[in-house]
Amino acid sequence: MTASPYDDPIYKAAIIDLLSAIGYGEISAFERMTEDAKMAPTLEDKVALLGVASAQFAKIEPVRQRLVALGVDPFAAMGEFKDGIDEFHDRTAPDDWWESLIKAYVGEGLTEDFYREIAGFLDEETRTLVVSTLEDQGQADFALAAANKGIAADPILAGRLALWGRRLMGEALIATQRVSASRDSLTGILSGESTFAGLDFAGLSAMFERITARHVERMSRLGLEH
Amino acid sequence: MTASPYDDPIYKAAIIDLLSAIGYGEISAFERMTEDAKMAPTLEDKVALLGVASAQFAKIEPVRQRLVALGVDPFAAMGEFKDGIDEFHDRTAPDDWWESLIKAYVGEGLTEDFYREIAGFLDEETRTLVVSTLEDQGQADFALAAANKGIAADPILAGRLALWGRRLMGEALIATQRVSASRDSLTGILSGESTFAGLDFAGLSAMFERITARHVERMSRLGLEH
Repeated sequence: MTASPYDDPIYKAAIIDLLSAIGYGEISAFERMTEDAKMAPTLEDKVALLGVASAQFAKIEPVRQRLVALGVDPFAAMGEFKDGIDEFHDRTAPDDWWESLIKAYVGEGLTEDFYREIAGFLDEETRTLVVSTLEDQGQADFALAAANKGIAADPILAGRLALWGRRLMGEALIATQRVSASRDSLTGILSGESTFAGLDFAGLSAMFERITARHVERMSRLGLEH
Repeated sequence: MTASPYDDPIYKAAIIDLLSAIGYGEISAFERMTEDAKMAPTLEDKVALLGVASAQFAKIEPVRQRLVALGVDPFAAMGEFKDGIDEFHDRTAPDDWWESLIKAYVGEGLTEDFYREIAGFLDEETRTLVVSTLEDQGQADFALAAANKGIAADPILAGRLALWGRRLMGEALIATQRVSASRDSLTGILSGESTFAGLDFAGLSAMFERITARHVERMSRLGLEH
């Protein structure tokens, strides 16, 4: 028998936390986007956003299965992240359809960048699973195209949404740090005291710089100042 | 070229109405069940109901495509049924998780029975499409199993949910008749003045008797008086 990366209990606990956060994040993204879709100006727009929401659902089951394989109660494990992720959504509940579109595009983009970065530090089995949850990028394109139309036509809207985009980025960073700091498996890295699968505090800082750079690119594609 | 059943403009208009009602019904079922899932007592229950909701989504696209092929703006056509179907959901908004489960099981069951009956009167192409929207019966089983547990343990709950089930049936019938009566394509049948694809008023009455009988079977499976 070859050694499993999960023989290291600290690594295993961190993987369970990561998958649980991804799983709860998908459940809540599904719910919140369905809620936001109520603000759609047309039935066609609504169905497009419901499509982005619905695509999240299919990603929950593989994560649930892996958590079971890792020996935990999957819904109890995911539930540990409820408060932190719900708080992010409560603090970024869109006030109108435009804010919903920007949240779908910018918020999903940030989430995907973050998990893609993290995936590089994981064992291959977990990495494959995490990367598989990041597919269907095409769906965010609807939000980009729809938002672009309104932004190009209305400089006041563009100003308001530029602020909204910055707020989403800030809230996402705060939520990520708050959630990470509450988990023993990650606290050491955030304090610079330990590493996780080769990721240390300096690596984490560089990672957040890359994620920020990609956020700026997304804001530019939207026609928004960052 | 062989004659198409759609050469008859009255038949074609009725098919467009039927598909539009099914399409909007799926959109609204998706939204309402996601809303109802907020009342789930556990994350596992919530994800189970979100699964039933999400399964509706995949059925929208084939209906949309067929409406486009029939030469209409699909979302405008579906939107014609918004008021009638929304009113049904507003009048049957569940007050708690138990009512949500019964609505998912009984409401979806009634809808499926109704469309399956109607499908028997349609051209093969439309019938195949309509029947394909009725699959995934297995998902309602979760609602049945979950509701059964509570009903078996609590006679007061069983009494309340028996009333709720009857109300769902009544509201569904009222909504179906109201929506049908508002559409020229169906008014004639409801008044006994015309037939549609072999379906006349007597046939329609017999159909509703069969649907009622199956509703009674579902209530029995739930352990509820009808």
